[in-house]
Amino acid sequence: MFRRVLVCDRGEIAVRLVRACRTLGTHSVVAHSTADAGTRATLLADDTFCLGPPDRALSYGSVPNVLYACAHSGADAVHPGYGSLAESPELARACEQTELTFIGPNSEVLALCGDKIAARTAMANADVPTLPGSDHALRDPDDAAAEAERVGYPVLLKAAAGGGGRGIRKVDDRSQLDEAFDEVTATACTAFGDERVYLEKHVSGVRHVEIQLISDRYGHTVHLGERDCSIQRGNRKLIEEAPAPALSERTRSALRNSGLRLAETVGLRNVATVEFLVDRNGTCYCTEVNPRIQVEHPVTEMWTGYDLAVSMISEAAGSALPFAQHELSPSGHAVEARITAESPEDGWRASAGHIEELRLPSGPGVRVDTWLETGTRVSPHYDPLLAKIIAWGTDRLMAVSRLRTALGEFSCSGVQTNVSALEAVLDDSSFREAAHDLDCLPRIESGDNNGL
Amino acid sequence: MFRRVLVCDRGEIAVRLVRACRTLGTHSVVAHSTADAGTRATLLADDTFCLGPPDRALSYGSVPNVLYACAHSGADAVHPGYGSLAESPELARACEQTELTFIGPNSEVLALCGDKIAARTAMANADVPTLPGSDHALRDPDDAAAEAERVGYPVLLKAAAGGGGRGIRKVDDRSQLDEAFDEVTATACTAFGDERVYLEKHVSGVRHVEIQLISDRYGHTVHLGERDCSIQRGNRKLIEEAPAPALSERTRSALRNSGLRLAETVGLRNVATVEFLVDRNGTCYCTEVNPRIQVEHPVTEMWTGYDLAVSMISEAAGSALPFAQHELSPSGHAVEARITAESPEDGWRASAGHIEELRLPSGPGVRVDTWLETGTRVSPHYDPLLAKIIAWGTDRLMAVSRLRTALGEFSCSGVQTNVSALEAVLDDSSFREAAHDLDCLPRIESGDNNGL
Repeated sequence: MFRRVLVCDRGEIAVRLVRACRTLGTHSVVAHSTADAGTRATLLADDTFCLGPPDRALSYGSVPNVLYACAHSGADAVHPGYGSLAESPELARACEQTELTFIGPNSEVLALCGDKIAARTAMANADVPTLPGSDHALRDPDDAAAEAERVGYPVLLKAAAGGGGRGIRKVDDRSQLDEAFDEVTATACTAFGDERVYLEKHVSGVRHVEIQLISDRYGHTVHLGERDCSIQRGNRKLIEEAPAPALSERTRSALRNSGLRLAETVGLRNVATVEFLVDRNGTCYCTEVNPRIQVEHPVTEMWTGYDLAVSMISEAAGSALPFAQHELSPSGHAVEARITAESPEDGWRASAGHIEELRLPSGPGVRVDTWLETGTRVSPHYDPLLAKIIAWGTDRLMAVSRLRTALGEFSCSGVQTNVSALEAVLDDSSFREAAHDLDCLPRIESGDNNGL
Repeated sequence: MFRRVLVCDRGEIAVRLVRACRTLGTHSVVAHSTADAGTRATLLADDTFCLGPPDRALSYGSVPNVLYACAHSGADAVHPGYGSLAESPELARACEQTELTFIGPNSEVLALCGDKIAARTAMANADVPTLPGSDHALRDPDDAAAEAERVGYPVLLKAAAGGGGRGIRKVDDRSQLDEAFDEVTATACTAFGDERVYLEKHVSGVRHVEIQLISDRYGHTVHLGERDCSIQRGNRKLIEEAPAPALSERTRSALRNSGLRLAETVGLRNVATVEFLVDRNGTCYCTEVNPRIQVEHPVTEMWTGYDLAVSMISEAAGSALPFAQHELSPSGHAVEARITAESPEDGWRASAGHIEELRLPSGPGVRVDTWLETGTRVSPHYDPLLAKIIAWGTDRLMAVSRLRTALGEFSCSGVQTNVSALEAVLDDSSFREAAHDLDCLPRIESGDNNGL
């Protein structure tokens, strides 16, 4: 096992990783920006190291600063969380050239998965179905138009190096294409440093379903079942659950087998998630592979009883998978809601402030992953995730009911939150009946529940 | 289902019961003393009702006040928690004569279980082994001496109407008997209003193991397995776990069957716990039956996935048990630590104060049942339980490790707590190896780990 693990991310996932280190008896060093000094993760860690100023490029996203932090703090492994460096091949490559262990897959896998065009080719090679789309970087709007005609409008123009729902634009017809092409190319350059764009057919009325995988260095991979993350606002997940409801056994099995084939083809190691869109007929389209821990991993942990964060560290330290596929025995149902600092009445603009009063829910079946404490400053520098509330129940309805109770208990002063929007989803009959899809949130928020 | 449930207890169990009502979609009314106005349970409840002054006899323990609270608040059921009226037949009898439902067994069962001498007879009738002891109320010290000679010293003198570890004194030989008899008789009168005492042989090196039962009105009973509660300070439980470790299958089966036989003989309904002492050879002695929810119920909930508080309310409302015995499929291991407001350096005297800063643990596998919030006043009127931290893991070591991490995260200002004493137990090698028994705590606290 490692002597010391440098945790190179912030917020709730840094707290999560400190706990995982402690469970394993390994020392944790939380690397943080000046804006995050004194936050919960730094207080719970065995040691801390300041990476630099708030700007991610100068702290959490700086490979030299992270390597320096490892050297200075005596860390022999680095966990990138789901942050700036979790999917960047650079840090992994630097670790491969030293004695440091990068907790994740190797740099080639990261490079492949980060290139969405190359990933589409890998999916095809693994016989994993994808959306109709372009299998090369689009040269110009005319090339894009030809591809869009071929697959049929509407299409999504996407940055090849994009991720997290950014660098995507929907195009309904030829007239929107020139402007959209320029916009996505510009975003691709500035946000991801890679101007390449591609397109995929846009499908509506689908669900977002993803498969959790874990692989070890000895060539074994197991899946940990599905998650449904179909409640999203502008490509950002709000509510997730495991297992994915309302799937036929045939579809479930197709998704799992696709995930396992892809893991083998790509050479995944450590944890990864394969994302799909699934339509009402059960047809599945693979959209991306995320070779890192996901924000929504707790629903899988609560459903399966398996600790993914601990497993990541153990696997990176050389352990084989602790169970075979047939030993997986998930139980009940788990649902997560992401509480964010956003102003519902101000176009969901991020809300910053100083938390003076705080009540976190707890109780049977309820897990809270948060970095908040009384006194926490929520800065405008980072994404607005405040807390994940996860509830488990013997069935989906009990899990939803417990989550609803827990959200009702949450309160904090100092920032605006999305709690009432989350409550509206949990109260919605289409969600309760698991009849929701990716297009549902606007319908729920407009109060029109008859759409389904 | 009930319209409104009056919750007639305080602290963490009142919060727990409000959550159970909410999960069921039933309104809760928290009945509270003046000292508990504004505490977490009252803030989370749908409604509140002030029972009277802090003194239990004038509020939580007053049957007329509780009946008045039900009438005034429109409650059609009353849940006594594990508080003053949970084992008193009076409130149950009053409910039986009205339209009110007492959430628990009927008044005859409560009367029987509350009389420890009658309970011993019931155990014998159910062919459930008890400790050698007196089967009648002891008339005087000479009668006690004759019984003690018969079973052999040391013996425990006990109040027939006692409970919660009070009204018990160990007697090593005849010379201590006169004074002890007078003392226990006096305590029995003042604390329980019933002067009768009896005695049982004292056995050392044993574990406290108990069986959780649940029965419905249709004559069905299931057990939910064992809990070990052998880490106690002066008969008060500190750390509990499910399943009970280091039991042979033969012993486990004997305990379960004894519990089920006793449930049938006594006519238990709703939830109950049957407590045993188990020696190193696996010999079991039944000591008491508690026909109410226990403080340590969450370890059973986390191990089995079954919500006992919700089940109590559902059963009282007429539901049959939701599963058959063979469907019980517990998983992993759960351990609970009770955080109390006590001064370790002042003979474990209760500590009162105002909580100004508070950090509660959370995260994977961790459940917190507490009534604390920033601003809570911990009053000297009540028992010192602040919070129960419960951790689940795929095995005992992982559960213990997660609990240890969680205790390290807990902090509060304003009162002294027993947290470092709990940490010492979790760090102790005999506890880690599950080689502990009821006599272990002094050995752990003196730092002598070689005793075993």
